[in-house]
This record gives sequence, C-alpha cells and structure tokens, in this order.
Amino acid sequence: MFSNVPPNAEITKIDFEGPKIAIYTRRPQIFLDNDSELIKRIAKTLRKRVIVRGDEKSRLQEETSREIISSLIPREAGLKDLYFNESIGEVEIELLSPEKVDPNILTRIFVETLWYPRVLRRPPVVSRSIKEIRDIYRAEVDYRRRFLKELGNNVYRTPLFETDRVRIVSLGAFQEVGRSAVLVQTPESNILLDAGLKPTSGGDELPLFDLPEFDPQNLDAVVITHAHLDHVGALPVLFKYGYKGPVYMTEPTLHLAKLLFEDYIKVAEREGKPQIYSAREIASVILHTYTLSYGEVTDIAPEIRLTLYRSGHILGSSLIHLHIGEGLVNLIYTGDIKFARTMLLDPAHTKFPRAEILIMETTYGSKSDLLPSEEEAVLELGKIIKETIDKGGITLIPVLAVGRAQEVLLAILNLIRNKLIPPIPIFIEGMIDEVSAVHMTFPEYLSQAVRNQIYNDQNPFTSENIHIYRGENKEEVVGTRPAVILATSGMLTGGPVLEYLKLLADDPNSSLVFVSYQVEGTLGRKILQGLRKLTFIEDGKIITKELKMSIYRVEGFSGHSDRRQLEAYLRRIEPTPRTVILNHGEKGKIAEFQSYLLSEWFKKKTHLTFNVLAPQNAEAIRVV
Amino acid sequence: MFSNVPPNAEITKIDFEGPKIAIYTRRPQIFLDNDSELIKRIAKTLRKRVIVRGDEKSRLQEETSREIISSLIPREAGLKDLYFNESIGEVEIELLSPEKVDPNILTRIFVETLWYPRVLRRPPVVSRSIKEIRDIYRAEVDYRRRFLKELGNNVYRTPLFETDRVRIVSLGAFQEVGRSAVLVQTPESNILLDAGLKPTSGGDELPLFDLPEFDPQNLDAVVITHAHLDHVGALPVLFKYGYKGPVYMTEPTLHLAKLLFEDYIKVAEREGKPQIYSAREIASVILHTYTLSYGEVTDIAPEIRLTLYRSGHILGSSLIHLHIGEGLVNLIYTGDIKFARTMLLDPAHTKFPRAEILIMETTYGSKSDLLPSEEEAVLELGKIIKETIDKGGITLIPVLAVGRAQEVLLAILNLIRNKLIPPIPIFIEGMIDEVSAVHMTFPEYLSQAVRNQIYNDQNPFTSENIHIYRGENKEEVVGTRPAVILATSGMLTGGPVLEYLKLLADDPNSSLVFVSYQVEGTLGRKILQGLRKLTFIEDGKIITKELKMSIYRVEGFSGHSDRRQLEAYLRRIEPTPRTVILNHGEKGKIAEFQSYLLSEWFKKKTHLTFNVLAPQNAEAIRVV
Repeated sequence: MFSNVPPNAEITKIDFEGPKIAIYTRRPQIFLDNDSELIKRIAKTLRKRVIVRGDEKSRLQEETSREIISSLIPREAGLKDLYFNESIGEVEIELLSPEKVDPNILTRIFVETLWYPRVLRRPPVVSRSIKEIRDIYRAEVDYRRRFLKELGNNVYRTPLFETDRVRIVSLGAFQEVGRSAVLVQTPESNILLDAGLKPTSGGDELPLFDLPEFDPQNLDAVVITHAHLDHVGALPVLFKYGYKGPVYMTEPTLHLAKLLFEDYIKVAEREGKPQIYSAREIASVILHTYTLSYGEVTDIAPEIRLTLYRSGHILGSSLIHLHIGEGLVNLIYTGDIKFARTMLLDPAHTKFPRAEILIMETTYGSKSDLLPSEEEAVLELGKIIKETIDKGGITLIPVLAVGRAQEVLLAILNLIRNKLIPPIPIFIEGMIDEVSAVHMTFPEYLSQAVRNQIYNDQNPFTSENIHIYRGENKEEVVGTRPAVILATSGMLTGGPVLEYLKLLADDPNSSLVFVSYQVEGTLGRKILQGLRKLTFIEDGKIITKELKMSIYRVEGFSGHSDRRQLEAYLRRIEPTPRTVILNHGEKGKIAEFQSYLLSEWFKKKTHLTFNVLAPQNAEAIRVV
Repeated sequence: MFSNVPPNAEITKIDFEGPKIAIYTRRPQIFLDNDSELIKRIAKTLRKRVIVRGDEKSRLQEETSREIISSLIPREAGLKDLYFNESIGEVEIELLSPEKVDPNILTRIFVETLWYPRVLRRPPVVSRSIKEIRDIYRAEVDYRRRFLKELGNNVYRTPLFETDRVRIVSLGAFQEVGRSAVLVQTPESNILLDAGLKPTSGGDELPLFDLPEFDPQNLDAVVITHAHLDHVGALPVLFKYGYKGPVYMTEPTLHLAKLLFEDYIKVAEREGKPQIYSAREIASVILHTYTLSYGEVTDIAPEIRLTLYRSGHILGSSLIHLHIGEGLVNLIYTGDIKFARTMLLDPAHTKFPRAEILIMETTYGSKSDLLPSEEEAVLELGKIIKETIDKGGITLIPVLAVGRAQEVLLAILNLIRNKLIPPIPIFIEGMIDEVSAVHMTFPEYLSQAVRNQIYNDQNPFTSENIHIYRGENKEEVVGTRPAVILATSGMLTGGPVLEYLKLLADDPNSSLVFVSYQVEGTLGRKILQGLRKLTFIEDGKIITKELKMSIYRVEGFSGHSDRRQLEAYLRRIEPTPRTVILNHGEKGKIAEFQSYLLSEWFKKKTHLTFNVLAPQNAEAIRVV
C-alpha cells in the first residue's frame, strides 16, 4: 500500500483518527518538503484524507517544546496558553491573534518538536463556555482517541448492502416549523440531519424518534446545520437514547449549541419542567462531535460523503451536501437559509459539484412574505431610538441570544458610527455576551467586513458603548438615560427582559421594539395584538401595570430568506436540482410555494422545471 | 359484565377463541331460544363477537352423540364422517351436500349433545389436499386452542399508543407486477396485506422484508387477498423469519394456497433451486390461519377491524376493508379485481360502509388495455377447437392451475352443451384436478349459476367429458382424437404441458392456444413472438423439433379488470374514496392511468375528483 513512500519517511504507526488516517513518523519533514506531494499521493492511493503526526518516542520533551514554541510565535500573535495532547501528539496553541502567525512557523514547530501544532483563538473577553469545551476534550483525550479510531473503522467498514435506493424519512419540521429532523436512509447507512425541538404551549415536542424505521443505536452519523433549538435541541436526547456515534457540525455551532443546551436545562429547572437531558448528555454531545469547516469533504459512511457550506443564517450555520453511493445521488439540505448579505454574515453558498435533490426551508413561502431590506430596518430602528432619546426614554429590545442579538448590536453600533444616533450606552443581558464571545472566537465565519474589523483591533463586540450586565439591581440600568437595552428572551416568554419590562412598562417616554417573529401565544405576540395590561410578580404578589411604552415592530433583521430570496436561491443554485422537497414551513405556506413552483407562470418565467414534493411528517420518500 | 344474563344460563367458562368470545354453558338452549336475542345483547355489551359452546363435563359421550347426529342428519345430505374436537367441544360433520340440512337440525344436535356442530363439505371427488388440512388441525387441537386464546388476548390488548396517524408502507408490487405486499402501520399496530413473490429470470424476489420499518416478529396480522403466488407465495417465508401471529383469508384461499406452496417447493426441488421454505412452514401457515367469510367483520387489532369482500378474480379472492381507529380512516385494498361477471364468479363488491382510501391494482391501466368480452373469447375458442377437430388434431391449452383452468373448462363444457363443438374428451393434467376439488368444496364462493349446478347434482367439474390424467404414457392421450388437453404450466415454463408439446409440436393438424398473459422471457412469449424451433430433452439428449402446430392467442379469459372495468369500478364504488393509490402495474401503465384520473377530461366526464398517488416500493405515505 505504501510502496511509493520513501523508506526514510520512518513511519512508525498508522491509525484512524475519525475519518482521517493519521501517519505517525519520526521525520515529518519528508512529508512536508516537496510541497506536500507525498501526502497528496498517499491520500489519493488510500482515497482517504491523511494527517501526519510525530512519532511518540521522537517528540521533544514538553518543557523543551514549550520553549521552542514560545520563541517561534511572534509577540503580536499574543500566545496565551499551550496544551500538549500526548494521546495524538498535538500541541494546542492558544493565541489572541492566530492570523498573525505565518504558516511556515507552524511547520517549523512541527519539524523541530514533532508536536503537531493546532492553533486556537483565545477570545478577547473571558468566556467560561469556550474554556469548558476545551477542558472536556482535555480531560478525555483517551476516550476521544478510542472514539475517533472506532469512528474511522465504522466509516471505512466493508459495506454489507448495495446502495441502490435512498430514502428521505421526515421525522420533524415537515408541514410545520420546529423539531427539524430528516433521516437519510440507504440499505447500508442511516444519517440524521438536524435534531430539533418544537416549542408548543404544552411543552416541547421531539421529532418522531418513535418511528419504526428510526433507531438511535443504528445511526451512522448526525449532522447539525446550526445552533438554534429547533435544529439542535433534541441532540442530547439521542445520547440519552443510546446513540454513541459521531455528530458533525462547524466549530461555532458546537460552541453555540452548548450554550443553548445549558440555558435550556436551566430554564426547565427554574420553571419546574421535566428535564429531557442533563449535563451528562451535553458532555456526550461535545465528546462525540467532529467539527468541520465549510467546504471540507468528509467520508461519514462507506458510501456517503459530507460537505458543509455556508447558509448565511447565523454564525457557523451550514447547508448540508451529501454525495451518496459513488455518484448515485447528491442531496442538499438547507437547514435555515439566508440568501442575502447581512452585516454579520455572507449569503448562502450556491455552487455545488452536483445536486439532484434539494430539501429547502419554506418559512417565508407565502406570496405575502416579503420583508424590508436590512438597510431599511436599520434606519427605522435608528429613527425609533432617536425619538426615544429625544423623549428622555429607554429603548428596550427583546432579542434571541443567538444571531439576532449580534445583528441588532451591529446595527446600533453602525447607527452610532454614522452619527444617526449619539454614542449612547448599550446594555446587554442574558447569555448574549457568551454568544458574542463565540462570535469573536470564530471571526473566519463572519462577513468579511466584521472579520476585518476584528483582525484590525476594531472588534465591534468589544466596543466601549457595550455594557455587559448581570446585576440584580436593574433600577441602575433603567436610571441611565439615554440608553438601549438588549435582553433575552426574544418573545417575552421569560429571561431578564421581563424584569426590565416591569420597570419600564408604565414609562410613556420609553419604547419596546420587537425585531423578530413573535410566535402565537407568547406575551410578545399578545402585546403586538393590543394587550396593554401586564401582570408581574413582585415580592411574591401579582401586580398589574399599564403598558404605556411606545410599541414598535421592526422587520428586516430576519435570518431567513423571504419569499423573493427563496425564489432567487432556486434560480441561482448550480446545478439546478431535479427535485425540490419543501419543509420547515407552515402547511399553508408550503402548499402556496409548491403550487407556485409547479405553475406554468413560474416555469415560463424561469425556464426551471422541478419535481416539487411536500411530504408530511412520518413519511418515507424515495429519491432514488 | 354479565348482569343481563339470566342465572339459569349456567355459564361455566368464558374464553377467547381468536377474535371471538366463547361462552361455555350447560344449557345452550337458553342462548338459542328467544331468537338469539341474548347472544346479540352480550355481543353488544362486550363489543365482541360471541360464540356459544357446550360445557365440557355436560357434553354427551362421543358414542351416544354419534348415534344422535347420524339419526338427525337426513340421508340425502350424505353424512361421510364425524370428528369430535374435545378441545373446544365442536363436532365436525362432513357431508356431501350440507345445503340439504335444515339449520334447525343443527340447533337440535347442539342442544341435545352439547357438541357444537360445524358442517364441512366433502367434495364428490377424492381430494388429498383438503383431507390433509383437516388432519393438520385435528392433530394440533391443543396448539390451535392456545394460539386462538393468545390471539384474542393480543387483539383485545389495551392500546399503548393513540392512533392518530396511519401509514401505507409499499413493500412490493408498487410500480411493478409481482410480490404484492402492503404494510399498514399505525403507532399501535402493524398489518401486512398480501405476501407475494415476483418471478424473474434470476429467481423469485421477495417483498422488501428488509425495510427497517418492517419486522415480522412485530406484525399483528397478515391478510391475504387470494391464492396466486404473487400475492401469497412469500407467506411461509414470514413464518421462517419468526412470525407467529394470525393470517386471515377465506377458506378456499387457504386450500388453494396450500396447493400452490406444495407445488412451488416441488418445482424448486426438481429444478435444483434453493428452497425458500419447507413443509414445516406450510403447516405453520395452516395452523395460524383464521378463515373468514365475505362480509364477516372481525377485530384484528385493538383499533383495526377487518372485512373481506368478493373481488371476482379467482375462487375465494377478496377485497380487504380495514376500519381503523374508531372511524379515523377506512381503507380498501383490491388485491386483484375483476369488475365483470364471469362464468365462474360474480363481479367485485362495490358497496362499503365507509371508504376514504382505495389501493387499487392497475395491471391493465393503459389506454390500449381493452380486452374482448368473455362471450367473444368462448366463441373464438370454440371456433379453434372445431377447426382442429375437423383437421383430426388435438387442441393443447397451457393453463395456470388456479382460476384460468376452471374458467376454460367451463367454457369448453358450455361449448359442448350448446353444441358448438361435439362432446369430445377433455384431458386435464397438472394440479388442476386438486384445484377443481377445492372449487367443488366451496360452491358458495362460485357464481350463482355454477353453484346451482353443483347443488342440483350437475357439477360441471365432474362432467363425464373430463378425464383427469396423471399417467406417464402421454402417447395414449395424444392418440385419442379428437380431444382437448389442458395442462400446466400456463407459460410453458415447466410442467406436463411441455411433454404434450413435445409429442404434438410437429403435428400441423393440432393447435396450441394461449389463454393467459405470457410474461417476457418465457417459452410461451417466445412462441408468440415467432419462435418455431423448439428443443426438448429426450432420453438425456437434447432434441430439436419444428413447431408446426397452429398457434392461437385467445384474450378475454382474464381475471383482471381491463382499463374500462377499472374505470367502471372507480365510478361505481360507494362511497367514493378521496384518495386512490395505484399499485400492481408496470410503471408506464400506472403513470398513464394516474394522469388519466387526474385529467380535466376524466373529472368533467365523471364528476369525480380523487387524490391519486403512485408510490414506488420502499416508500411510506401517510393517509391520515
């Protein structure tokens, strides 16, 4: 197998490391010289991705290595910490500014110490959560190595069955919004795309994990598009049900998901609801996750290859592309998709090597689902804040912690920079600060504009205008005028925003601004529908307050494509899929969009002819 | 529970007997007097069907009972045998003419002996197979009683799940002909409709029993429409895979299926093919079958009620009607359907209490699939036989053993009766004689005309013109001229017909008449396509013969509805279903019929609007 490897490469061990082959050598320079031609040749022969590692006995001692690394890393990169993972011979190098390290320096570190360098970004603010994830991996290096080895063995097993058919089983979010879960099933493999929860007034609903064709213990892989509860909230439940396999997602998604899970069980505890999982399952998720970058092609089953692409929805959000059965069929699942540039993110990816089947979200599938542009939304928000300042009031904005909060934060900072509003303090409360820390840790997932700001020490998330607040005495915040307060939850169903609302409710000079969709039955929705008598708990008693604030609704900050953008995406995606499967939308909106796509009018206008399907939950449809 | 049962009823035991409740009493007359009002009242209270049995200790001794029964049964009924089933207190009374016994006599037998009388018909010819089935039940009365008790417990179990969705899983015969198998799946129950084989040149294919949502050990019931291999051939395989539950079908279907199974393994053995099941599994099928009459409503799961109705295709063939979830949905599965009166059978049933979903066969779904009427077919056959007689030749007709053979036999007898041909001998060979015996045993399943002939001692199947032949010396038969020979198999793929063909091939005065569909790849199809050089084995050597017989193809004896009859059935069925699911047809024919049913032309003509689905195999579609 390795006949074309020169004997002086001194290979001492070959091992699976997840879907990659790790080659342990005494002389990594042999692999790194000649412009890595050797690695490419081996990878091509094996048809697997290859990573070079240093032979265990040949690695320099930690102390010596530490000195060499410290001397090689330039001061401006801000070296904060080194961690030696002996299990695989990797040294984790935590830097404030990894972009300031020349790749050749990393090669030198590897060749001189035989420790493989992995660079991590240390965010400029303290993040408990990011540290915790790193600690979990470090505490379980041996478990992790065994898991990755087993994973490799499973991915590269000899297939028992011929892959001559591919089924899409709709476990959740078909003809509804919430509990996204799509099972891709071949005779050989089972891949689950997303594992979300559906919030309802009667408690959160799981996907149809009880369908007879779904068995968590028989899954080969779970792939997660992004860190919103309706796409990832049920993931820890799978581990409770006995799943022990890999989860694929981007690194930011993992970090954001951990925050969501922890917040979810905290809220459930506070509200006395049943705990559907615990910290134990959250740790399992982290230990079984294999993170991927956009565009990285990875084998996840003997006949299935996965690639994640940018979806434009929130930080780290992905489209999923599956290449199945050596070219039998290629399937794209959008998760949630934004086909427009926002301040925070670039738009969804459109070019694929092949794409016959497209499973697409349809949240805004109705003809009337047309949203204003983000520019218009920012200007409108500016006008509201300005008027509120003029009245001496406070602008209170309920936000979802992940995605919308950062977008609105950037909007307000832009308004200040462009002098459309004065440089007033912005108070944020909830888990928004931890979420912002994750944004700062993974700037390569942000829009080019924001990324460049971060690289050039103009990190908007550390702006002096932003005041992170966790104090109990909210009167102090409310007394600071003028000011803007961003607080969770986004639909007034709980969280610190309710405390602020209680203090501000009867202040006619202050404003309450909704920037995201308010689900039927939430307090936010009721206020939009005209509710003006609010009840709160104070010192154990129920008190009533008249809502005298000015109420606004600013649309245009959505992370979803509106109807126009959905259509534009279908026209732009390359190649054009033959079958479009609509999901993640209310029944009526899906029906409307389906008949539009099938209409003569659409066909004439676009010269596109799709087979358009709109399955219900609990169906299994053949795509091959 | 039994508060309204008079104490003098002297009930000594209550037990499940399959889906019925058996009430053991010392005084059956209490239940049988008053026009059985008491039984009706109990059945209504229990919402279960009730059967009255005699208390074990109070039953008269066998010898005494035998004398009483012999004296009560009228001589003209032809008492042949009595069998006392002690396990449930039933006496099986075998009669040549059960229709000649007044029901009051049976009541008297029960009241006087406390043995519950069950009347069986003894066919006028010796049938090995019918006797074997009776022997199997008699040898295993205790197993059978335990099985029926367990069955009752399972059918009337407390449901664990709410039946709020119903899925149709396509295991076989979707967009193809062969291996019919439809899984009806609710959260609580799994019901399999048909279990057929698909004959292909590479061997017979099973339904997709390997689909993850199908588990033979988790099935609640199997329901069989009729005894053709493509609907019942895989049934013994389920028992090999561990199925231990009930199979529902009509009594003639069970008897015909047993013949098919035995013939199937005999042929496989002779041809050196792998045996997919053995006599052991055939016996299991028989022991686990619960036979139903047309129109008999039976609980088969906590929330599913089954009724079989006449489908007009072959003896005992049924439509399946399922009433699911206390009125949630009603589903009809046609199996194979003939919506026209034939000599042998009345046409398919059309009136149902409710029917939202119709799964319909589409064998002849193409516009060009128009067959001549049976009258035309009979006249054409008569002409051919007549001409062949005039030339001094023999008419050789390859036939399928079940259905077509009997139809053609009746056609020839009619031609003789109407003097369109002289009373020539009809030789039959294959398992046709055993199949005819089953027809004679269950005349109540035949058309009224034939049934009346049998009741009036004019049984056509025992006509003096018919000569059953099993001899090795076929030269004798071929030397008898004029004559007609009916022999299996119907497509010249094996069986005695090949021996006759070898002897007659080069006789230009004889005729070869095809009366059924010839599948691609069979010798029958090749001859129709022009093949005239035939090869046979003689004394271990391959010999070649020129085919000089006149070759004919007579259409119109089909047991399937042609395109016109399929449409007529859809127009006639009451109530009109909202969804029609097309199966059992070639892909192209199904597509053609589907677009016809969805066309404006059809809607305008019929004022019918269906939701028309055409799933592939391995799909699961929601009907609720």
